[in-house]
Amino acid sequence: MRVRAVVAYDGTNYHGFQRQRNAPTVQEALEAAIAQVTQESVTILAAGRTDAGVHALGQVIACDTHWCHGSVALQRALNATLPTDIVVQEVSVAPDDFHPRRDARSRHYRYTVYNAAVRSPVGRQYHWHVPWMLNLEAMRVAAGALIGEHDFATFGQPPKGRVTIRHVLRAEWSGTPPTLYFDIEANAFLYRMVRSIVGTLVQVGQGKIGVADFVYRFHQADRDQAGPTAPARGLCLVAVRY
Amino acid sequence: MRVRAVVAYDGTNYHGFQRQRNAPTVQEALEAAIAQVTQESVTILAAGRTDAGVHALGQVIACDTHWCHGSVALQRALNATLPTDIVVQEVSVAPDDFHPRRDARSRHYRYTVYNAAVRSPVGRQYHWHVPWMLNLEAMRVAAGALIGEHDFATFGQPPKGRVTIRHVLRAEWSGTPPTLYFDIEANAFLYRMVRSIVGTLVQVGQGKIGVADFVYRFHQADRDQAGPTAPARGLCLVAVRY
Repeated sequence: MRVRAVVAYDGTNYHGFQRQRNAPTVQEALEAAIAQVTQESVTILAAGRTDAGVHALGQVIACDTHWCHGSVALQRALNATLPTDIVVQEVSVAPDDFHPRRDARSRHYRYTVYNAAVRSPVGRQYHWHVPWMLNLEAMRVAAGALIGEHDFATFGQPPKGRVTIRHVLRAEWSGTPPTLYFDIEANAFLYRMVRSIVGTLVQVGQGKIGVADFVYRFHQADRDQAGPTAPARGLCLVAVRY
Repeated sequence: MRVRAVVAYDGTNYHGFQRQRNAPTVQEALEAAIAQVTQESVTILAAGRTDAGVHALGQVIACDTHWCHGSVALQRALNATLPTDIVVQEVSVAPDDFHPRRDARSRHYRYTVYNAAVRSPVGRQYHWHVPWMLNLEAMRVAAGALIGEHDFATFGQPPKGRVTIRHVLRAEWSGTPPTLYFDIEANAFLYRMVRSIVGTLVQVGQGKIGVADFVYRFHQADRDQAGPTAPARGLCLVAVRY
Protein backbone atom coordinates (compact mmCIF):
# COMPACT_ATOMS: atom_id res chain seq x y z
CA MET A 1 0.00 0.00 0.00
CA ARG A 2 1.34 3.44 -0.92
CA VAL A 3 0.88 6.08 1.74
CA ARG A 4 1.00 9.86 1.15
CA ALA A 5 1.80 12.28 3.98
CA VAL A 6 1.99 16.04 4.34
CA VAL A 7 4.93 16.96 6.56
CA ALA A 8 5.94 20.20 8.31
CA TYR A 9 9.39 20.80 9.75
CA ASP A 10 11.70 23.39 11.21
CA GLY A 11 14.83 22.95 9.08
CA THR A 12 17.15 24.80 11.48
CA ASN A 13 18.82 21.69 12.84
CA TYR A 14 18.95 19.61 9.63
CA HIS A 15 21.34 19.48 6.71
CA GLY A 16 18.41 19.65 4.32
CA PHE A 17 15.77 17.12 3.40
CA GLN A 18 17.75 14.58 1.43
CA ARG A 19 19.58 11.79 3.26
CA GLN A 20 23.34 12.33 3.63
CA ARG A 21 26.15 10.40 5.16
CA ASN A 22 27.25 11.79 8.57
CA ALA A 23 24.73 14.64 8.84
CA PRO A 24 21.19 14.73 10.26
CA THR A 25 18.52 15.15 7.57
CA VAL A 26 14.74 15.33 7.58
CA GLN A 27 14.53 12.26 5.34
CA GLU A 28 16.59 10.21 7.78
CA ALA A 29 14.45 11.32 10.76
CA LEU A 30 11.22 10.50 8.88
CA GLU A 31 12.48 7.12 7.69
CA ALA A 32 13.65 6.25 11.21
CA ALA A 33 10.23 7.15 12.67
CA ILE A 34 8.36 5.18 9.98
CA ALA A 35 10.64 2.18 10.51
CA GLN A 36 10.10 2.32 14.26
CA VAL A 37 6.32 2.57 13.94
CA THR A 38 5.77 0.07 11.11
CA GLN A 39 8.70 -2.27 11.84
CA GLU A 40 9.56 -2.06 8.13
CA SER A 41 12.59 -0.55 6.49
CA VAL A 42 11.39 2.17 4.10
CA THR A 43 12.72 4.68 1.59
CA ILE A 44 10.54 7.74 1.16
CA LEU A 45 9.93 9.83 -1.95
CA ALA A 46 9.48 13.60 -1.51
CA ALA A 47 8.07 16.47 -3.57
CA GLY A 48 11.05 18.74 -3.02
CA ARG A 49 14.57 18.44 -1.67
CA THR A 50 14.76 21.48 0.58
CA ASP A 51 18.24 22.81 1.37
CA ALA A 52 19.91 22.91 4.77
CA GLY A 53 18.06 25.34 7.05
CA VAL A 54 14.96 25.61 4.83
CA HIS A 55 11.60 24.95 6.52
CA ALA A 56 8.39 23.32 5.33
CA LEU A 57 4.72 23.55 6.19
CA GLY A 58 3.53 21.31 3.37
CA GLN A 59 6.26 18.97 2.13
CA VAL A 60 4.64 15.88 0.55
CA ILE A 61 6.17 12.43 0.91
CA ALA A 62 5.17 8.91 -0.05
CA CYS A 63 6.27 5.39 0.86
CA ASP A 64 5.10 1.80 0.66
CA THR A 65 4.07 -0.05 3.80
CA HIS A 66 2.10 -3.06 5.03
CA TRP A 67 0.68 -1.00 7.92
CA CYS A 68 -2.91 -2.15 8.51
CA HIS A 69 -4.19 0.02 11.37
CA GLY A 70 -5.44 2.96 9.29
CA SER A 71 -4.17 6.46 8.45
CA VAL A 72 -5.23 8.14 11.69
CA ALA A 73 -3.34 5.65 13.84
CA LEU A 74 -0.28 5.91 11.58
CA GLN A 75 -0.24 9.72 11.84
CA ARG A 76 -0.65 9.58 15.62
CA ALA A 77 2.11 6.97 16.06
CA LEU A 78 4.51 8.91 13.80
CA ASN A 79 3.88 12.19 15.63
CA ALA A 80 4.51 10.49 18.96
CA THR A 81 7.83 9.16 17.60
CA LEU A 82 9.15 12.12 15.57
CA PRO A 83 11.28 14.86 17.21
CA THR A 84 9.51 18.15 18.05
CA ASP A 85 10.86 19.87 14.93
CA ILE A 86 9.08 17.50 12.50
CA VAL A 87 5.36 16.73 12.36
CA VAL A 88 3.01 14.82 10.06
CA GLN A 89 0.04 17.06 9.22
CA GLU A 90 -1.99 14.44 7.39
CA VAL A 91 -1.76 10.87 6.12
CA SER A 92 -3.81 9.23 3.37
CA VAL A 93 -3.72 6.19 1.13
CA ALA A 94 -2.47 6.99 -2.39
CA PRO A 95 -2.56 5.16 -5.74
CA ASP A 96 0.29 2.64 -6.06
CA ASP A 97 2.00 4.77 -8.70
CA PHE A 98 1.72 8.11 -6.82
CA HIS A 99 5.03 9.97 -6.99
CA PRO A 100 5.17 13.19 -4.92
CA ARG A 101 7.78 14.87 -7.14
CA ARG A 102 6.78 13.73 -10.64
CA ASP A 103 3.04 14.13 -10.07
CA ALA A 104 3.25 17.61 -8.55
CA ARG A 105 1.67 20.35 -10.66
CA SER A 106 3.18 23.23 -8.67
CA ARG A 107 5.13 24.18 -5.55
CA HIS A 108 4.45 27.24 -3.39
CA TYR A 109 7.35 28.75 -1.45
CA ARG A 110 7.26 31.71 0.94
CA TYR A 111 10.32 33.78 1.81
CA THR A 112 10.17 36.02 4.92
CA VAL A 113 12.18 39.24 5.19
CA TYR A 114 12.43 41.13 8.49
CA ASN A 115 13.07 44.70 7.39
CA ALA A 116 14.11 46.87 10.35
CA ALA A 117 17.23 48.73 11.41
CA VAL A 118 17.73 46.43 14.41
CA ARG A 119 17.61 42.62 14.14
CA SER A 120 14.95 40.60 15.98
CA PRO A 121 15.90 37.67 18.27
CA VAL A 122 12.34 36.35 18.32
CA GLY A 123 11.70 34.34 15.16
CA ARG A 124 15.23 34.84 13.83
CA GLN A 125 15.27 31.18 12.66
CA TYR A 126 12.47 31.98 10.20
CA HIS A 127 13.47 35.25 8.52
CA TRP A 128 16.28 37.16 6.84
CA HIS A 129 17.07 40.41 8.63
CA VAL A 130 17.45 43.15 6.00
CA PRO A 131 18.48 46.44 7.68
CA TRP A 132 18.38 48.64 4.57
CA MET A 133 15.44 50.82 3.52
CA LEU A 134 13.56 48.97 0.78
CA ASN A 135 11.48 50.33 -2.08
CA LEU A 136 8.73 47.73 -1.93
CA GLU A 137 6.97 49.12 -4.99
CA ALA A 138 10.06 48.55 -7.16
CA MET A 139 10.38 45.01 -5.74
CA ARG A 140 6.73 44.35 -6.62
CA VAL A 141 7.09 45.53 -10.21
CA ALA A 142 10.30 43.52 -10.71
CA ALA A 143 8.66 40.40 -9.23
CA GLY A 144 5.83 40.75 -11.73
CA ALA A 145 8.31 40.23 -14.59
CA LEU A 146 8.92 36.67 -13.34
CA ILE A 147 5.36 35.52 -13.99
CA GLY A 148 4.85 33.24 -16.98
CA GLU A 149 7.03 30.72 -18.80
CA HIS A 150 10.65 31.90 -18.93
CA ASP A 151 14.21 30.69 -18.92
CA PHE A 152 15.29 31.08 -15.26
CA ALA A 153 19.00 30.29 -15.81
CA THR A 154 19.93 33.63 -14.18
CA PHE A 155 18.47 32.42 -10.88
CA GLY A 156 19.62 28.83 -10.60
CA GLN A 157 21.18 25.70 -11.92
CA PRO A 158 19.21 22.86 -13.44
CA PRO A 159 19.92 19.20 -12.91
CA LYS A 160 22.89 18.50 -15.23
CA GLY A 161 22.15 19.29 -18.86
CA ARG A 162 18.44 19.80 -18.33
CA VAL A 163 16.38 22.78 -19.42
CA THR A 164 16.11 25.90 -17.30
CA ILE A 165 12.64 26.90 -18.44
CA ARG A 166 10.07 27.06 -15.67
CA HIS A 167 6.51 28.37 -15.42
CA VAL A 168 5.93 30.85 -12.58
CA LEU A 169 2.24 31.18 -11.66
CA ARG A 170 2.57 33.71 -8.85
CA ALA A 171 5.35 35.99 -7.57
CA GLU A 172 4.29 38.70 -5.15
CA TRP A 173 5.27 40.64 -2.04
CA SER A 174 2.86 41.11 0.88
CA GLY A 175 2.98 41.68 4.64
CA THR A 176 3.29 44.79 6.74
CA PRO A 177 6.66 46.26 7.71
CA PRO A 178 8.84 45.15 9.37
CA THR A 179 7.68 41.68 8.19
CA LEU A 180 7.56 41.17 4.41
CA TYR A 181 6.60 37.98 2.58
CA PHE A 182 7.54 36.93 -0.94
CA ASP A 183 5.22 34.20 -2.24
CA ILE A 184 6.19 32.36 -5.37
CA GLU A 185 4.49 29.42 -7.04
CA ALA A 186 5.83 27.59 -10.08
CA ASN A 187 5.50 24.24 -11.81
CA ALA A 188 9.03 23.50 -10.59
CA PHE A 189 12.16 25.33 -9.38
CA LEU A 190 15.84 25.30 -10.22
CA TYR A 191 18.39 24.73 -7.45
CA ARG A 192 18.38 27.77 -5.07
CA MET A 193 16.07 29.65 -7.45
CA VAL A 194 13.81 31.25 -4.83
CA ARG A 195 16.74 32.43 -2.68
CA SER A 196 18.54 33.82 -5.73
CA ILE A 197 15.42 35.69 -6.84
CA VAL A 198 14.88 37.12 -3.33
CA GLY A 199 18.52 38.21 -3.00
CA THR A 200 18.29 39.98 -6.36
CA LEU A 201 14.89 41.55 -5.63
CA VAL A 202 16.24 42.95 -2.35
CA GLN A 203 18.99 44.63 -4.39
CA VAL A 204 16.19 46.16 -6.47
CA GLY A 205 14.56 47.34 -3.23
CA GLN A 206 17.85 48.91 -2.13
CA GLY A 207 18.13 50.72 -5.46
CA LYS A 208 21.33 48.87 -6.37
CA ILE A 209 19.59 47.38 -9.40
CA GLY A 210 16.88 49.26 -11.33
CA VAL A 211 13.69 47.46 -12.34
CA ALA A 212 14.64 47.60 -16.04
CA ASP A 213 18.10 46.26 -15.19
CA PHE A 214 16.52 43.41 -13.20
CA VAL A 215 14.41 42.44 -16.23
CA TYR A 216 17.46 42.68 -18.50
CA ARG A 217 19.52 40.44 -16.20
CA PHE A 218 16.65 37.97 -15.95
CA HIS A 219 16.33 37.71 -19.74
CA GLN A 220 20.08 37.27 -20.17
CA ALA A 221 19.54 33.77 -18.69
CA ASP A 222 23.03 33.92 -17.24
CA ARG A 223 23.77 32.80 -13.65
CA ASP A 224 26.42 35.54 -13.29
CA GLN A 225 23.73 38.21 -13.61
CA ALA A 226 22.01 37.34 -10.31
CA GLY A 227 22.46 39.19 -7.04
CA PRO A 228 23.49 37.38 -3.84
CA THR A 229 21.57 34.32 -2.69
CA ALA A 230 19.31 35.07 0.31
CA PRO A 231 19.92 32.90 3.42
CA ALA A 232 18.12 29.59 3.78
CA ARG A 233 16.38 30.30 7.08
CA GLY A 234 13.87 32.73 5.48
CA LEU A 235 12.56 30.09 3.09
CA CYS A 236 9.61 27.76 3.63
CA LEU A 237 7.98 25.20 1.32
CA VAL A 238 4.34 26.09 2.00
CA ALA A 239 2.44 23.67 -0.21
CA VAL A 240 2.67 21.28 -3.15
CA ARG A 241 -0.29 21.07 -5.51
CA TYR A 242 -1.36 18.01 -7.54
CA MET B 1 25.39 58.72 33.68
CA ARG B 2 22.40 56.41 33.88
CA VAL B 3 21.48 54.69 30.64
CA ARG B 4 18.10 53.13 29.84
CA ALA B 5 17.74 50.42 27.21
CA VAL B 6 14.87 48.48 25.69
CA VAL B 7 15.90 44.86 25.18
CA ALA B 8 14.37 41.99 23.20
CA TYR B 9 15.37 38.36 23.65
CA ASP B 10 14.48 34.80 22.80
CA GLY B 11 14.42 33.17 26.24
CA THR B 12 14.64 29.57 24.93
CA ASN B 13 18.29 29.07 25.85
CA TYR B 14 18.35 31.03 29.13
CA HIS B 15 17.47 30.14 32.70
CA GLY B 16 15.45 33.32 32.98
CA PHE B 17 16.49 36.95 33.21
CA GLN B 18 18.01 37.12 36.66
CA ARG B 19 21.65 36.18 37.20
CA GLN B 20 22.23 32.70 38.67
CA ARG B 21 25.24 30.69 39.60
CA ASN B 22 26.12 27.98 37.03
CA ALA B 23 23.33 28.71 34.51
CA PRO B 24 23.22 31.10 31.56
CA THR B 25 20.89 34.07 32.10
CA VAL B 26 19.92 37.11 30.07
CA GLN B 27 21.26 39.43 32.78
CA GLU B 28 24.67 37.76 32.67
CA ALA B 29 24.82 38.00 28.85
CA LEU B 30 23.83 41.68 28.92
CA GLU B 31 26.28 42.57 31.70
CA ALA B 32 29.07 40.74 29.86
CA ALA B 33 28.33 42.66 26.64
CA ILE B 34 28.16 46.01 28.45
CA ALA B 35 31.41 45.26 30.28
CA GLN B 36 33.13 44.32 27.02
CA VAL B 37 31.93 47.46 25.22
CA THR B 38 32.39 50.01 28.03
CA GLN B 39 35.35 48.35 29.79
CA GLU B 40 33.44 48.85 33.06
CA SER B 41 32.00 46.26 35.39
CA VAL B 42 28.24 46.90 35.65
CA THR B 43 25.17 45.57 37.41
CA ILE B 44 21.94 46.19 35.54
CA LEU B 45 18.47 46.85 36.89
CA ALA B 46 15.47 45.42 34.99
CA ALA B 47 11.73 46.06 34.85
CA GLY B 48 10.78 42.40 35.19
CA ARG B 49 12.52 39.14 36.05
CA THR B 50 11.20 36.87 33.34
CA ASP B 51 11.28 33.11 34.06
CA ALA B 52 13.33 30.48 32.25
CA GLY B 53 12.10 30.16 28.66
CA VAL B 54 10.04 33.39 28.68
CA HIS B 55 10.74 35.85 25.84
CA ALA B 56 10.77 39.66 25.68
CA LEU B 57 10.22 42.27 23.02
CA GLY B 58 10.34 45.24 25.39
CA GLN B 59 12.23 44.46 28.59
CA VAL B 60 13.61 47.70 30.07
CA ILE B 61 16.98 47.82 31.80
CA ALA B 62 19.18 50.54 33.27
CA CYS B 63 22.78 50.84 34.37
CA ASP B 64 25.39 53.46 35.18
CA THR B 65 28.32 54.03 32.85
CA HIS B 66 31.01 56.53 31.93
CA TRP B 67 30.50 55.78 28.21
CA CYS B 68 30.96 59.05 26.30
CA HIS B 69 30.39 58.15 22.64
CA GLY B 70 26.61 58.60 22.59
CA SER B 71 23.55 56.34 22.67
CA VAL B 72 23.62 55.32 19.00
CA ALA B 73 27.22 54.11 19.18
CA LEU B 74 26.49 52.26 22.44
CA GLN B 75 23.51 50.47 20.93
CA ARG B 76 25.49 49.52 17.82
CA ALA B 77 28.45 48.25 19.83
CA LEU B 78 26.22 46.20 22.15
CA ASN B 79 24.33 44.62 19.25
CA ALA B 80 27.60 43.69 17.59
CA THR B 81 28.71 42.02 20.84
CA LEU B 82 25.51 40.33 22.06
CA PRO B 83 24.56 36.80 20.93
CA THR B 84 21.89 36.50 18.20
CA ASP B 85 19.15 35.74 20.71
CA ILE B 86 19.45 39.10 22.52
CA VAL B 87 19.21 42.57 20.96
CA VAL B 88 19.07 46.17 22.20
CA GLN B 89 16.13 47.91 20.51
CA GLU B 90 16.92 51.39 21.81
CA VAL B 91 19.25 53.22 24.18
CA SER B 92 18.72 56.60 25.84
CA VAL B 93 20.07 58.66 28.69
CA ALA B 94 17.84 58.52 31.80
CA PRO B 95 17.60 60.58 35.00
CA ASP B 96 20.14 59.43 37.62
CA ASP B 97 17.39 58.01 39.81
CA PHE B 98 15.56 56.14 37.03
CA HIS B 99 14.65 52.64 38.22
CA PRO B 100 13.10 50.37 35.55
CA ARG B 101 11.13 48.26 38.04
CA ARG B 102 10.04 50.80 40.64
CA ASP B 103 9.18 53.52 38.12
CA ALA B 104 7.13 51.28 35.82
CA ARG B 105 3.44 52.11 35.67
CA SER B 106 2.43 48.92 33.88
CA ARG B 107 3.68 45.79 32.12
CA HIS B 108 2.13 44.25 29.03
CA TYR B 109 2.54 40.50 28.48
CA ARG B 110 1.32 38.44 25.54
CA TYR B 111 0.71 34.69 25.71
CA THR B 112 0.46 32.73 22.43
CA VAL B 113 -1.62 29.56 22.13
CA TYR B 114 -1.41 27.36 19.03
CA ASN B 115 -4.79 25.64 18.96
CA ALA B 116 -4.83 22.79 16.44
CA ALA B 117 -5.14 19.02 16.58
CA VAL B 118 -1.56 18.56 15.32
CA ARG B 119 1.42 20.41 16.82
CA SER B 120 3.47 22.85 14.71
CA PRO B 121 7.27 22.55 14.48
CA VAL B 122 7.62 26.07 13.03
CA GLY B 123 7.46 28.60 15.86
CA ARG B 124 7.15 25.91 18.57
CA GLN B 125 9.58 27.92 20.79
CA TYR B 126 7.02 30.74 20.96
CA HIS B 127 3.69 29.06 21.62
CA TRP B 128 1.85 26.50 23.70
CA HIS B 129 0.27 23.79 21.60
CA VAL B 130 -3.27 23.20 22.86
CA PRO B 131 -4.88 20.30 20.92
CA TRP B 132 -8.35 20.49 22.51
CA MET B 133 -11.36 22.34 21.02
CA LEU B 134 -11.64 25.68 22.82
CA ASN B 135 -14.71 27.81 23.49
CA LEU B 136 -13.09 31.18 22.85
CA GLU B 137 -16.22 33.10 23.82
CA ALA B 138 -16.20 31.55 27.32
CA MET B 139 -12.48 32.35 27.63
CA ARG B 140 -13.19 35.97 26.63
CA VAL B 141 -15.95 36.42 29.20
CA ALA B 142 -13.86 34.82 31.97
CA ALA B 143 -10.86 37.02 31.09
CA GLY B 144 -13.07 40.10 31.43
CA ALA B 145 -13.58 39.28 35.12
CA LEU B 146 -9.87 39.90 35.73
CA ILE B 147 -10.03 43.58 34.79
CA GLY B 148 -9.80 46.06 37.67
CA GLU B 149 -8.20 45.99 41.10
CA HIS B 150 -8.46 42.53 42.67
CA ASP B 151 -6.69 40.10 44.94
CA PHE B 152 -4.86 37.75 42.52
CA ALA B 153 -3.70 35.23 45.16
CA THR B 154 -5.39 32.42 43.18
CA PHE B 155 -3.00 33.01 40.31
CA GLY B 156 0.35 33.54 41.95
CA GLN B 157 2.60 34.08 44.90
CA PRO B 158 3.71 37.51 46.06
CA PRO B 159 7.18 38.34 47.28
CA LYS B 160 7.21 37.00 50.89
CA GLY B 161 4.53 38.54 53.08
CA ARG B 162 3.54 41.20 50.56
CA VAL B 163 0.05 41.96 49.28
CA THR B 164 -1.46 40.06 46.37
CA ILE B 165 -3.63 42.90 45.10
CA ARG B 166 -2.89 43.98 41.54
CA HIS B 167 -4.61 46.26 39.05
CA VAL B 168 -5.31 44.66 35.65
CA LEU B 169 -5.92 47.24 32.91
CA ARG B 170 -6.47 44.88 29.99
CA ALA B 171 -7.09 41.13 29.64
CA GLU B 172 -8.29 39.95 26.24
CA TRP B 173 -8.06 37.20 23.65
CA SER B 174 -7.44 37.96 19.98
CA GLY B 175 -5.92 36.28 16.93
CA THR B 176 -7.35 33.91 14.34
CA PRO B 177 -7.29 30.14 14.82
CA PRO B 178 -5.04 28.24 15.06
CA THR B 179 -3.05 31.14 16.60
CA LEU B 180 -4.63 32.79 19.64
CA TYR B 181 -3.15 35.65 21.70
CA PHE B 182 -3.90 36.56 25.29
CA ASP B 183 -2.84 40.13 26.07
CA ILE B 184 -2.74 41.25 29.66
CA GLU B 185 -1.56 44.54 31.10
CA ALA B 186 -1.34 45.30 34.81
CA ASN B 187 0.46 47.65 37.17
CA ALA B 188 2.47 44.62 38.32
CA PHE B 189 2.27 40.81 38.35
CA LEU B 190 2.66 38.07 40.92
CA TYR B 191 5.14 35.23 40.31
CA ARG B 192 3.85 33.06 37.39
CA MET B 193 0.56 35.01 37.36
CA VAL B 194 0.12 35.24 33.57
CA ARG B 195 0.90 31.56 33.00
CA SER B 196 -1.45 30.53 35.83
CA ILE B 197 -4.26 32.67 34.40
CA VAL B 198 -3.73 31.25 30.89
CA GLY B 199 -3.67 27.65 32.14
CA THR B 200 -6.93 28.24 34.02
CA LEU B 201 -8.58 30.11 31.11
CA VAL B 202 -7.74 27.21 28.77
CA GLN B 203 -9.60 24.93 31.20
CA VAL B 204 -12.55 27.30 30.82
CA GLY B 205 -12.17 26.99 27.03
CA GLN B 206 -12.19 23.19 27.32
CA GLY B 207 -15.37 23.33 29.41
CA LYS B 208 -13.63 21.81 32.43
CA ILE B 209 -14.35 24.98 34.43
CA GLY B 210 -17.50 27.06 33.86
CA VAL B 211 -17.23 30.86 33.62
CA ALA B 212 -19.06 31.31 36.94
CA ASP B 213 -16.76 28.74 38.56
CA PHE B 214 -13.73 30.60 37.19
CA VAL B 215 -14.94 33.83 38.79
CA TYR B 216 -15.66 32.00 42.06
CA ARG B 217 -12.18 30.46 42.15
CA PHE B 218 -10.64 33.84 41.33
CA HIS B 219 -12.46 35.55 44.19
CA GLN B 220 -11.49 32.79 46.65
CA ALA B 221 -7.95 34.27 46.45
CA ASP B 222 -6.56 30.79 47.09
CA ARG B 223 -3.61 29.41 45.08
CA ASP B 224 -5.10 25.88 45.19
CA GLN B 225 -8.07 27.05 43.11
CA ALA B 226 -6.00 27.70 39.96
CA GLY B 227 -5.73 25.36 36.99
CA PRO B 228 -2.35 24.19 35.69
CA THR B 229 0.36 26.73 34.86
CA ALA B 230 0.81 27.22 31.10
CA PRO B 231 4.36 26.57 29.76
CA ALA B 232 6.89 29.39 29.74
CA ARG B 233 7.65 29.34 26.00
CA GLY B 234 4.27 30.91 25.07
CA LEU B 235 4.92 34.00 27.20
CA CYS B 236 6.47 37.27 26.08
CA LEU B 237 7.04 40.58 27.92
CA VAL B 238 5.86 42.95 25.17
CA ALA B 239 6.31 46.35 26.78
CA VAL B 240 6.80 48.25 30.02
CA ARG B 241 5.10 51.61 30.36
CA TYR B 242 6.32 54.56 32.47
